[in-house]
Amino acid sequence: MAAYAKGGLRYLHKLNAANIPAELIQKGQNRVIDASLTLIRERAKLKGELLRALGGANAVASLLGVPLGHNSSFLQGPAFAPPRIREAIWCGSTNSTTEEGKQLEDPRILTDVGDVPVQEIRDCGVDDDRLMTVISDSVKLVMEEDPLRPLVLGGDHSISYPVVRAVTEKLGGPVDVLHLDAHPDIYDAFEGNKYSHASSFARIMEGGHVRRLLQVGLRSITSEGREQGKRFGVEQYEMRTFSRDRELLENLKLGEGVKGVYISVDVDCLDPAFAPGVSHLEPGGLSFRDVMNILQNLKGNVVAADVVEFNPQRDTVDGMTAMVAAKLVRELTAKISG
Amino acid sequence: MAAYAKGGLRYLHKLNAANIPAELIQKGQNRVIDASLTLIRERAKLKGELLRALGGANAVASLLGVPLGHNSSFLQGPAFAPPRIREAIWCGSTNSTTEEGKQLEDPRILTDVGDVPVQEIRDCGVDDDRLMTVISDSVKLVMEEDPLRPLVLGGDHSISYPVVRAVTEKLGGPVDVLHLDAHPDIYDAFEGNKYSHASSFARIMEGGHVRRLLQVGLRSITSEGREQGKRFGVEQYEMRTFSRDRELLENLKLGEGVKGVYISVDVDCLDPAFAPGVSHLEPGGLSFRDVMNILQNLKGNVVAADVVEFNPQRDTVDGMTAMVAAKLVRELTAKISG
Amino acid sequence: MAAYAKGGLRYLHKLNAANIPAELIQKGQNRVIDASLTLIRERAKLKGELLRALGGANAVASLLGVPLGHNSSFLQGPAFAPPRIREAIWCGSTNSTTEEGKQLEDPRILTDVGDVPVQEIRDCGVDDDRLMTVISDSVKLVMEEDPLRPLVLGGDHSISYPVVRAVTEKLGGPVDVLHLDAHPDIYDAFEGNKYSHASSFARIMEGGHVRRLLQVGLRSITSEGREQGKRFGVEQYEMRTFSRDRELLENLKLGEGVKGVYISVDVDCLDPAFAPGVSHLEPGGLSFRDVMNILQNLKGNVVAADVVEFNPQRDTVDGMTAMVAAKLVRELTAKISG
Amino acid sequence: MAAYAKGGLRYLHKLNAANIPAELIQKGQNRVIDASLTLIRERAKLKGELLRALGGANAVASLLGVPLGHNSSFLQGPAFAPPRIREAIWCGSTNSTTEEGKQLEDPRILTDVGDVPVQEIRDCGVDDDRLMTVISDSVKLVMEEDPLRPLVLGGDHSISYPVVRAVTEKLGGPVDVLHLDAHPDIYDAFEGNKYSHASSFARIMEGGHVRRLLQVGLRSITSEGREQGKRFGVEQYEMRTFSRDRELLENLKLGEGVKGVYISVDVDCLDPAFAPGVSHLEPGGLSFRDVMNILQNLKGNVVAADVVEFNPQRDTVDGMTAMVAAKLVRELTAKISG
Amino acid sequence: MAAYAKGGLRYLHKLNAANIPAELIQKGQNRVIDASLTLIRERAKLKGELLRALGGANAVASLLGVPLGHNSSFLQGPAFAPPRIREAIWCGSTNSTTEEGKQLEDPRILTDVGDVPVQEIRDCGVDDDRLMTVISDSVKLVMEEDPLRPLVLGGDHSISYPVVRAVTEKLGGPVDVLHLDAHPDIYDAFEGNKYSHASSFARIMEGGHVRRLLQVGLRSITSEGREQGKRFGVEQYEMRTFSRDRELLENLKLGEGVKGVYISVDVDCLDPAFAPGVSHLEPGGLSFRDVMNILQNLKGNVVAADVVEFNPQRDTVDGMTAMVAAKLVRELTAKISG
Amino acid sequence: MAAYAKGGLRYLHKLNAANIPAELIQKGQNRVIDASLTLIRERAKLKGELLRALGGANAVASLLGVPLGHNSSFLQGPAFAPPRIREAIWCGSTNSTTEEGKQLEDPRILTDVGDVPVQEIRDCGVDDDRLMTVISDSVKLVMEEDPLRPLVLGGDHSISYPVVRAVTEKLGGPVDVLHLDAHPDIYDAFEGNKYSHASSFARIMEGGHVRRLLQVGLRSITSEGREQGKRFGVEQYEMRTFSRDRELLENLKLGEGVKGVYISVDVDCLDPAFAPGVSHLEPGGLSFRDVMNILQNLKGNVVAADVVEFNPQRDTVDGMTAMVAAKLVRELTAKISG
Repeated sequence: MAAYAKGGLRYLHKLNAANIPAELIQKGQNRVIDASLTLIRERAKLKGELLRALGGANAVASLLGVPLGHNSSFLQGPAFAPPRIREAIWCGSTNSTTEEGKQLEDPRILTDVGDVPVQEIRDCGVDDDRLMTVISDSVKLVMEEDPLRPLVLGGDHSISYPVVRAVTEKLGGPVDVLHLDAHPDIYDAFEGNKYSHASSFARIMEGGHVRRLLQVGLRSITSEGREQGKRFGVEQYEMRTFSRDRELLENLKLGEGVKGVYISVDVDCLDPAFAPGVSHLEPGGLSFRDVMNILQNLKGNVVAADVVEFNPQRDTVDGMTAMVAAKLVRELTAKISG
Repeated sequence: MAAYAKGGLRYLHKLNAANIPAELIQKGQNRVIDASLTLIRERAKLKGELLRALGGANAVASLLGVPLGHNSSFLQGPAFAPPRIREAIWCGSTNSTTEEGKQLEDPRILTDVGDVPVQEIRDCGVDDDRLMTVISDSVKLVMEEDPLRPLVLGGDHSISYPVVRAVTEKLGGPVDVLHLDAHPDIYDAFEGNKYSHASSFARIMEGGHVRRLLQVGLRSITSEGREQGKRFGVEQYEMRTFSRDRELLENLKLGEGVKGVYISVDVDCLDPAFAPGVSHLEPGGLSFRDVMNILQNLKGNVVAADVVEFNPQRDTVDGMTAMVAAKLVRELTAKISG
Repeated sequence: MAAYAKGGLRYLHKLNAANIPAELIQKGQNRVIDASLTLIRERAKLKGELLRALGGANAVASLLGVPLGHNSSFLQGPAFAPPRIREAIWCGSTNSTTEEGKQLEDPRILTDVGDVPVQEIRDCGVDDDRLMTVISDSVKLVMEEDPLRPLVLGGDHSISYPVVRAVTEKLGGPVDVLHLDAHPDIYDAFEGNKYSHASSFARIMEGGHVRRLLQVGLRSITSEGREQGKRFGVEQYEMRTFSRDRELLENLKLGEGVKGVYISVDVDCLDPAFAPGVSHLEPGGLSFRDVMNILQNLKGNVVAADVVEFNPQRDTVDGMTAMVAAKLVRELTAKISG
Repeated sequence: MAAYAKGGLRYLHKLNAANIPAELIQKGQNRVIDASLTLIRERAKLKGELLRALGGANAVASLLGVPLGHNSSFLQGPAFAPPRIREAIWCGSTNSTTEEGKQLEDPRILTDVGDVPVQEIRDCGVDDDRLMTVISDSVKLVMEEDPLRPLVLGGDHSISYPVVRAVTEKLGGPVDVLHLDAHPDIYDAFEGNKYSHASSFARIMEGGHVRRLLQVGLRSITSEGREQGKRFGVEQYEMRTFSRDRELLENLKLGEGVKGVYISVDVDCLDPAFAPGVSHLEPGGLSFRDVMNILQNLKGNVVAADVVEFNPQRDTVDGMTAMVAAKLVRELTAKISG
Repeated sequence: MAAYAKGGLRYLHKLNAANIPAELIQKGQNRVIDASLTLIRERAKLKGELLRALGGANAVASLLGVPLGHNSSFLQGPAFAPPRIREAIWCGSTNSTTEEGKQLEDPRILTDVGDVPVQEIRDCGVDDDRLMTVISDSVKLVMEEDPLRPLVLGGDHSISYPVVRAVTEKLGGPVDVLHLDAHPDIYDAFEGNKYSHASSFARIMEGGHVRRLLQVGLRSITSEGREQGKRFGVEQYEMRTFSRDRELLENLKLGEGVKGVYISVDVDCLDPAFAPGVSHLEPGGLSFRDVMNILQNLKGNVVAADVVEFNPQRDTVDGMTAMVAAKLVRELTAKISG
Repeated sequence: MAAYAKGGLRYLHKLNAANIPAELIQKGQNRVIDASLTLIRERAKLKGELLRALGGANAVASLLGVPLGHNSSFLQGPAFAPPRIREAIWCGSTNSTTEEGKQLEDPRILTDVGDVPVQEIRDCGVDDDRLMTVISDSVKLVMEEDPLRPLVLGGDHSISYPVVRAVTEKLGGPVDVLHLDAHPDIYDAFEGNKYSHASSFARIMEGGHVRRLLQVGLRSITSEGREQGKRFGVEQYEMRTFSRDRELLENLKLGEGVKGVYISVDVDCLDPAFAPGVSHLEPGGLSFRDVMNILQNLKGNVVAADVVEFNPQRDTVDGMTAMVAAKLVRELTAKISG
């Protein structure tokens, strides 16, 4: 998959070698990016208008797909995740009610503004700095439209940085973050890539976007990961002591005194038994019910969330992890909407 | 997957029930469709400008994905195909040369304008008549930009109708069509759906878009299929007699006196041994080399083509059919570009 | 699989269209049903005679397969389950002792009367009302033969209705039911089908066959499911509160003052991690050991049981769920026999 | 799976050890066998009556399943094949027309009398001599009912012996047999089992049931296999020389001067690329189209046929070999019915 | 796979039949065994020399693969395990730190002396008595080289006997053994094989190599298993009572007053949900975190360990169980090295 | 898998960083290499002695495994192939006769000297130059022992260079090579690696080890591949023209006037339908029977051969490609032995 991920770079390289004027390329890229953002704006606007016409909803979870996988260090399959998660959400094998009884088919509970066209933008030779800005801008376009709140479908974990950045910039201040993951994703850079999916929380903490960062489910962490955690004041809960920490984690109260709570769920917080469709199989993780207990009992105003690192190319034939990712999205919808 | 496919309808249904003014919905849909077409126009324009700046190319195959699966009668996985085919084209496991030596990495041989945002348009409640027009318009936008020629990645076979329609309207006259498939796809309608993937060639023939239609690989055909074939003057070659017809089919000459040749390859023209990742497993089909022999020896000016009905959800774990679809795209690129 | 399921209807439809006298069909159906019941009677009788000759057994679990899948709303694979469960019970990879030490190879612990020929009866055009009666009659034929007690292998969950009905009619009064499932299966009807696998417990409760109904493992329940639960006085234990309810559920005492206890185990009560081979993947379920703890600690006279909704077409290649279903059958055997 | 196969023996062993009177067992076995045959008789009778009432059919292929796998030397999965083949025949992914245009939904083309209850009979301790007679008797019961002709679904290849025996006894004389297989299945006995699936054609030839036996597709044959072939005058066509023999084999004329033609298709005659779901993977076999060419061009009165050795436990996840077995059954139906 | 396992026997049988002088064979076998042990000695010596030159390590876990599967009663895939476990240990998808922070890439933490050439030795016709001695000798060669301690990669569980024997002989006295397993593996003999993987702990106990033997995770145990347990004074902890025993097992202190602690981990101690790649699927086992809690909290001087019964032929396509086995090895390394 | 492949380098790197004297490392490496070669010598000697004692064999194919995968450009699974191929050769699902009747169980037809311990040697930090020499030396040790002839089991295709080099050096002159492959493997170097599996035939041709090199099955070849072919006078047969070349290729006569014929079979010469278990899926290849026809009709004295690039990690669950590789080995054995 490496060659696919490098699509944009390869293309630009060929063009540069051919002495095409840089200005011609940049203008074209600008027009493509503008058109991409216009498309997201129009979809968000239509959904917002309709919900305001319907009335009666203060906050509505709105799906935004970010099919980006090239900042992964190992496999890039998460770029294929958003359409598979949507399929599993609406799949006929389960009913469309959350565990506590909210109706997902009600547009006041869940709506959808589609995907950021990540691959098309990269195929025009746009670099990662700019791509990250497009993602941030897309999130802000969703938040423009009251009562939509972003529920982002990854993609690899690198997308949490531009998403959290946009959320806090739009809200005008930091949030508390509940981060469920096997890894801290807080390395300064990984293999030289500062946008690596293993570095997103270093970028987030440096940016001052977060007051408290709680990391839960950790079981693959190096000394650098622990040091970076201390440096940024991260509250790291490792699986080694989960039986001791469980009571605390199943009774969290977050977001008071800041702009609210952001929840980032890396599917690999779960043990591979519960979620085999991930790029990094780390035995010894949370059960699905553990995650439910933490989320359902969390007290706080959830302003946005993401579900990342589901890799359809590693899933079972019948899509067990797609169903897991979809149920995470469904229950996060229940936390956000109301 | 049924519920996903019905996304648009369900959404509209909810809104209609809630007495949202139809005008509000329609205006929003119009804006979303306009933005979608603008995005395709800008991508095509950028690629066209660059190619014209590079110079030296009369015809360049340009990928256009149409991730549409809901007009399939059985499974809807082909909606997931375009990104998987692109991944396989650029996959590091094979070199980027066609069998006869063309370099796919040369932008003068192969370029890409991305996908029509089919699911997002449908999720806004747009119906199939309008969606088909959006697909036709997208194809025309590609053809606007000299030297681009559309090489369309399905999606199910229903997309061939709006694509062929656009190609012939843009060229100003009919084409000859070489259609490789296990089925004739020529039923008047299938289960009441005139846009069914089993009816696309009835629509195409009715529209007068085609002079000669050759169907090769047939082995699942009913009496209605044969009657419709006679009615429209289709040249139907069944697998039952392939050993007898082989010589003729490996030496075709098409497209003279009309606007050129259109090639439509349904991946299930191949025996399931060679292409297990399809929705309709019909034993007794062509070998991959049979298809190569037919395509490589075909004489004619290939103006556009499609590769449809690859279903990633039925593929082997290591993506054998994705590689097959990608090689079909690669060799069709060799026929188109130059 | 839809077409297979509709076998009986299609056949009758063709015959009706051909003006075959209804009487001719009905007489033939009657003879086929009589022969089917005779075959079950003779197998039960042989096993009963042998066990009485052996002596020393008051209650012996007797397998009765009901390969019925057409009342499922999603997939019909459970029709293939009974032979796969039998294979896994006797599979050479494990010994034939229950966890508490009973020998399954001892005919006084476990015997088998084979399958109700469900598909053949339906293929003769017999409708569901009548088929349900055949299943009830088959269960009664097993109970005729002291010391046999029915341990029914589904099939989808729709079969629990005719089985519970037969058990309580034969015993002359209601039982308590322990029902392990992800879903309450208590809808009035599902998609118009009153025999749906999602409605079996509505039928059971309406029929007055049950005093207490305990549902354990629920995590996909709609407002209708909760209302029907209240209406029928069902004790519904949801996974959301399982950590709180665990103590109670691991120390149940049932069946006193009624005719005994019936246990119905839907394999999807387990989390998909433990039992991927089911039609409805609902993350967040019981672990296999949770189920063992509930069953092994249950106090009460277990008069019959079923294991349903194992779907071999969704199992792992090496049959992990078949082994799970088999172990459920083995441990239920331990509860019944003695 | 060994233990499952030994079900009957284990059961009897336990009972013998317990000194149950042999007479008690035998009487029970007799009653079970009688009831089994009655059930088949009634089903065949009903189908026969209806077809005679419909009129207009001289010969109608009638499916009879024989789920027997225990005479296989390697894996016993073919016991699970008959329901899977039926499912694939009626599966919605293909139309119900044969390649030459016969309608399978017409009861005058294809009907079904269900399965011989092989596992239940064996579980009562019945030995193989007697079981083979039950299979022969079942075939004869089908042939009793004009215009039914047996199209038997295996099961392993050991079933061809009792089937061919019954067919020729019922017709009153020998037939010609076209046998498609990777192996000659003509060993005197295999691992001491005279009913082994590797010995069925030795039994058939010894019994004088056959005039000409043509074996096609051979590529795993020992010196004993060749010697037995010579001894019995078998015409053995090996894959080594298939390109030379193709013309002859695609223009066969059989059955004149005897009672007709019997066709036995072992699914492993196909190369594993086309039919991976078999117990014995022998590379270098026929393509599916090769088999079609042989069957469709065969001239002769086909009085009965079997399709054996499909092993669902080795099939691909999406059931490619089930579709292959089903299409073999469909095209054999076309040869038999009319 | 049976034939492969019987490689040695088949070969010898042929040679004996051919009247080759026994002395010729024995001398050749001796030379092959000597060369095999020399190779292991040299590898251990090189690793020992280097570590001593590096300095600063008292105990270093040293991998020794024993690819032996033929003493398994069901499947022989564990013979393929050692290279797959090594691949998973160094696989790029996870970092090389243990949960408590030891660096696996530091040669003072983990080193490797390669595999005992089991298959080659058996293929020369060497019998099991002698093969077991070769395994014991190989373990001793590792222990010769200070600071190496054996961390053995099976293979099936039969290898624990020669390994424990060598360890205690080399240390000059018994050890305590913590044995995690679904089965007690303590049968006197299994199907007549005293070296069976189901009998290894009977051999170990008879040999007086162990003071205390704790078996944890048991859920498939017969009356013989319990009796043998009593006879040898084994402390057997069954899964039935794990919730009660958990506290005790998560706070073990072993090895004082003897030569230390030996840990033997049969991968099937885990529930199949966590470790599907095993030959014997026994639902109801430990979670991966349960195992971690037991191992990480164990107090004692761990002198050697093994991880056995991982069967790559039953693993998921993406190697989930390989990752589980690798993490067991990694965390055992953390216990041993320091 | 990258990290595993780099095992040796990583280890050396650590040691160099620690200032271990280079001499200490080199001496240890020398001793390990000596012991490795001694082990192969002894195994070859034993097999040779026995065969000479048996008498009556002029040439006996002798398996030598070379589990080397790190010179592959894409996936390194071929390192796991040799034990899987052996298992498939002796697997109970097929008989042990070649298609033309040779008995593989006869030691005068097929013997085995085991594997070169590639991974262990690399793990001691030995570089590729030296490793290639070890492989050459191992081949020569086999050829020392009359009547053994090497039949090498790869490994990736890089191993053909040291094998052909050893064969021709030992025989004292060049050979003709029949090379079946999808790729020419004749690049000067691939990604800077002169030992790459894509460069082995450049090394072979440069070394003057070959008179005629025939490459058959080519369908992934670049302009460099064609130029290198011309430069070295290679006879390249592409699949594009196979139907035209078939007659010639099925009647080859090679090796006269030189030391004989060497056959190198890359499993990916086959179409992926026949051999999915390879690293590079190239549709449009040979059928298994095509390969058989070429090999069985080849006239010439086959002095050695290899079967390479089978990748067990990409095979189907039931090992279809393992059976294909095994049958290639079996039929090559028939060509070599006699």
